[in-house]
Amino acid sequence: MERRTDLALEARELVGEEIKGVNLEEEHRCGIKISRLKIDSERASRQLDKPRGTYITLELPPLTDSFRDTDERIGVIADEVRKLLPVNGLVLVAGLGNPEITPDALGPKAISKVLATRHIKGEVARATGLDKLRPVAAIATGVTGKTGIETGEYLYSIIKKIKPNAIVAIDALASRRLARLGCTLQLSNTGISPGAGVGNNRTRLCDETLGVPVIGIGVPTVVEASTLAFDLFDTNDEEFSCQLREKVNPSGRQMVVTPKEIDLLINRAAELIALSLNSALHTDLSVNDLLSLMY
Amino acid sequence: MERRTDLALEARELVGEEIKGVNLEEEHRCGIKISRLKIDSERASRQLDKPRGTYITLELPPLTDSFRDTDERIGVIADEVRKLLPVNGLVLVAGLGNPEITPDALGPKAISKVLATRHIKGEVARATGLDKLRPVAAIATGVTGKTGIETGEYLYSIIKKIKPNAIVAIDALASRRLARLGCTLQLSNTGISPGAGVGNNRTRLCDETLGVPVIGIGVPTVVEASTLAFDLFDTNDEEFSCQLREKVNPSGRQMVVTPKEIDLLINRAAELIALSLNSALHTDLSVNDLLSLMY
Amino acid sequence: MERRTDLALEARELVGEEIKGVNLEEEHRCGIKISRLKIDSERASRQLDKPRGTYITLELPPLTDSFRDTDERIGVIADEVRKLLPVNGLVLVAGLGNPEITPDALGPKAISKVLATRHIKGEVARATGLDKLRPVAAIATGVTGKTGIETGEYLYSIIKKIKPNAIVAIDALASRRLARLGCTLQLSNTGISPGAGVGNNRTRLCDETLGVPVIGIGVPTVVEASTLAFDLFDTNDEEFSCQLREKVNPSGRQMVVTPKEIDLLINRAAELIALSLNSALHTDLSVNDLLSLMY
Amino acid sequence: MERRTDLALEARELVGEEIKGVNLEEEHRCGIKISRLKIDSERASRQLDKPRGTYITLELPPLTDSFRDTDERIGVIADEVRKLLPVNGLVLVAGLGNPEITPDALGPKAISKVLATRHIKGEVARATGLDKLRPVAAIATGVTGKTGIETGEYLYSIIKKIKPNAIVAIDALASRRLARLGCTLQLSNTGISPGAGVGNNRTRLCDETLGVPVIGIGVPTVVEASTLAFDLFDTNDEEFSCQLREKVNPSGRQMVVTPKEIDLLINRAAELIALSLNSALHTDLSVNDLLSLMY
Repeated sequence: MERRTDLALEARELVGEEIKGVNLEEEHRCGIKISRLKIDSERASRQLDKPRGTYITLELPPLTDSFRDTDERIGVIADEVRKLLPVNGLVLVAGLGNPEITPDALGPKAISKVLATRHIKGEVARATGLDKLRPVAAIATGVTGKTGIETGEYLYSIIKKIKPNAIVAIDALASRRLARLGCTLQLSNTGISPGAGVGNNRTRLCDETLGVPVIGIGVPTVVEASTLAFDLFDTNDEEFSCQLREKVNPSGRQMVVTPKEIDLLINRAAELIALSLNSALHTDLSVNDLLSLMY
Repeated sequence: MERRTDLALEARELVGEEIKGVNLEEEHRCGIKISRLKIDSERASRQLDKPRGTYITLELPPLTDSFRDTDERIGVIADEVRKLLPVNGLVLVAGLGNPEITPDALGPKAISKVLATRHIKGEVARATGLDKLRPVAAIATGVTGKTGIETGEYLYSIIKKIKPNAIVAIDALASRRLARLGCTLQLSNTGISPGAGVGNNRTRLCDETLGVPVIGIGVPTVVEASTLAFDLFDTNDEEFSCQLREKVNPSGRQMVVTPKEIDLLINRAAELIALSLNSALHTDLSVNDLLSLMY
Repeated sequence: MERRTDLALEARELVGEEIKGVNLEEEHRCGIKISRLKIDSERASRQLDKPRGTYITLELPPLTDSFRDTDERIGVIADEVRKLLPVNGLVLVAGLGNPEITPDALGPKAISKVLATRHIKGEVARATGLDKLRPVAAIATGVTGKTGIETGEYLYSIIKKIKPNAIVAIDALASRRLARLGCTLQLSNTGISPGAGVGNNRTRLCDETLGVPVIGIGVPTVVEASTLAFDLFDTNDEEFSCQLREKVNPSGRQMVVTPKEIDLLINRAAELIALSLNSALHTDLSVNDLLSLMY
Repeated sequence: MERRTDLALEARELVGEEIKGVNLEEEHRCGIKISRLKIDSERASRQLDKPRGTYITLELPPLTDSFRDTDERIGVIADEVRKLLPVNGLVLVAGLGNPEITPDALGPKAISKVLATRHIKGEVARATGLDKLRPVAAIATGVTGKTGIETGEYLYSIIKKIKPNAIVAIDALASRRLARLGCTLQLSNTGISPGAGVGNNRTRLCDETLGVPVIGIGVPTVVEASTLAFDLFDTNDEEFSCQLREKVNPSGRQMVVTPKEIDLLINRAAELIALSLNSALHTDLSVNDLLSLMY
């Protein structure tokens, strides 16, 4: 497949035909298009190059529109996140990616606004009611090139110590379409591959490798140069597609690009994820309560 | 011309044939390819869509290589900058662009390391020898969308007050090739168009509009999505090129992208420009002297 | 006076007795203590070392409390700012200070969230109603040590070109009390001295020097080490005060300090000022409208 | 003791007299004053409120002077660090503190420039010689209030997994003197108390609690307001000291301050620590080699 994508929805689009073992349902709520895609069979999983499981894609209005006034939209996203989470117990939220590379900073930026509550204990907590909040731990894992430690090793160490009921892993993804960057959210119960969004595939973080359910939350922030080019000349003309494949300059295949507005896109997506996740974890608190704890 | 570029050297490449009124000389020094392009006639200026004047393009090794140890390279760039500057008198260095948009932050980032000396006067300056430094003022102009003031108006106001002998305007540019981003430096004596690199063309800043020579220093940091796509399928096959032009998705024309490594690229290019410019302006100081004043 | 302060209210406190030519009124609104101090005589001005005019001090709850939910408080501050502004015409907002020095970054941080509207013209503006907004320009002046240009020269140049009806100058101030840092706002119609908050007194920016009314908005962010020490041993015992004055280590007089929470303090104060000022300038827009334009 | 300090050297100063079980040697190298203090007895440890062990204090020129040209000074510091490290095997470097609070950001800032090498394996590493570098892992632990995990728990988890021969823990400290901030380096073989520099004492990280030697590297970045005040009126007059103690305003005891130049101070100290530590760990590489790998 010459068009790389981390979105299950796009992988299905690219295969094109009806696939056995793939189930897709769509819904619209508060201006968000929600697609629920289930990959049920091993064959379908191989065809789409995605693990079996549930992928929920939320398509939001483009980032030029503000989302500040839309408590309803936060509510819609929080509802979808909540369905993937265990009903109670400690949740470890992990922000993946390199904070010094803007298009890869989604995880660490979101983490800095996720409310950690696991350590809140004792008199003061009881007096203020904070001891009733669900226990949450929140870490930025860094990237292997800077820490010398694989993200999987890192998470595994922490899990053995703090024993969460589930992990939520936040990471930047790659899409096949520029127009989707920053305004599409993929939730899945199949875990996440660290560095996928920036071209370094490593061991998948999931129930099998970590021994605890891993919910992935990702937003596409980059697109491969050659994928972008194919997309721009999108065609049903089979012969022309062949020509494109022949003529592409091989040196372009490795290059990965991001829109010039990437800073804005990352800031908004990180705030959106943190706010929705906080809302999904602490159902008693309103969006206004959460905002005043986050800032 | 469907392939947009702010580099005169690339504009000439795209026209392809020998053009009357355009003179090109090439040289190699310390691993830098120096191209000196002169546009002499009005007709050539129209063909290339670039004002008449001198354009010096310096092609450096890719940004993955460090330049920290290369005092020689700083010297080569400083030499080229110095040739475009008046021999003495006040120089106003202006950093154009939006510091909050990483690919547009080249100007403000470079300015923060340009040594301002115009205000250094009096006893202490005399005692330390700092009063002998060439007078330099250094400002970040901001962008019209954030200030409400056109960059030209802004510079014109300051010029009337401080009366510099020349302006050096630093800005991010657009290239037609991903591979050139961050490792090509264009110097010119024809001024600069603010916002060119990020798609907003405004009044050109030059001798005619500002009444003082304007030396432009730019580094390409972005590429238009459709330019990138054409470049990736680069071909001499005339028929295939026609097909490409027909099949391109029109919505892609407006999108502008940057490499995922943009933070690194901007940091290095800004340091390189500041260091070379400081060296060109203060010929008595070594690179080590300059670095210790800059940090 | 060995206890340095930029707050007129504190200067009066330090003098201690009733002063002829100084009028003080106090009021409480929505948890904010508002003090309106008028210096009417030349003698009082000399005694307090502050120019004649009106100083409005707003004492807010400490920064540990959030202000996100308090549209009412924003309204109170906006009302006070509005009383000092001309009723219509262009306003130039200037952020003073060095963005790279956290306790001095109040001005530039606030400016980045002030809505500039002077450039919004034409069809689109008419269609969206944006052409009805009051014209505002917003610049960060930088600091002389980095630009080579005095703040007064800088503003004077811009004023001659764009001819505003008033200037609003935002800057960090020095207080005599740690407890006031970050939660006290001083508004005045007497202009501002750039760099006062960080110990560099330069030409005052005011009606006399710039030819246009200058409204100062400041928040104390620093305190001199010796002022802090005197404050900590605050005493009515005249003899002990004399001893303190004798025994102070002279090297400490020059040192200026800030609380360890300075980042939080600056972020909150900058947002508070930008939001209140935007609200004072654009009376038709709600706080929610403003927030969605600011982010 | 009303004057709080994390520096063993200052604790001894404050006790004043000769203390049994405390040994102090001083040396000057390349403009650095090196004090080697050994606390040998339990009684001395209690008197100074510091664990038994070795404390090396390096007093550098004030931060207004550049250290960029001083490869010799880097060498002096690296020598002292190396004496505390095991001769070979994996080293885990941990940066403690909150990156969003400037005076507490020393650890995370330094970590971002520490070279991690533990993951470098395989053909490419062999070809480039990188596989011969000493294995190093480098993590920022975050702070409990943001992660929900105690720093000790965090490090213990990672240690169990990667089994280092030693930990180097970098953190901001509190001093009793403003003049020492940013230009004094304390190395010790007694571990470190996370959050000490910003007033939150938690379980000490040391050989006893973590099961592996912990080398502490700290730079004072803050001073308690009341400690600062006492220091400013420093006196041998016993009677006056008593008066000070009586008259201090109790609300001032909790406040912690930092110099207004804290950003510069943190940036320089973090670079100095990272460079010295990299040099101590990778003895085959020159300062220039290290700088080009770090940037």
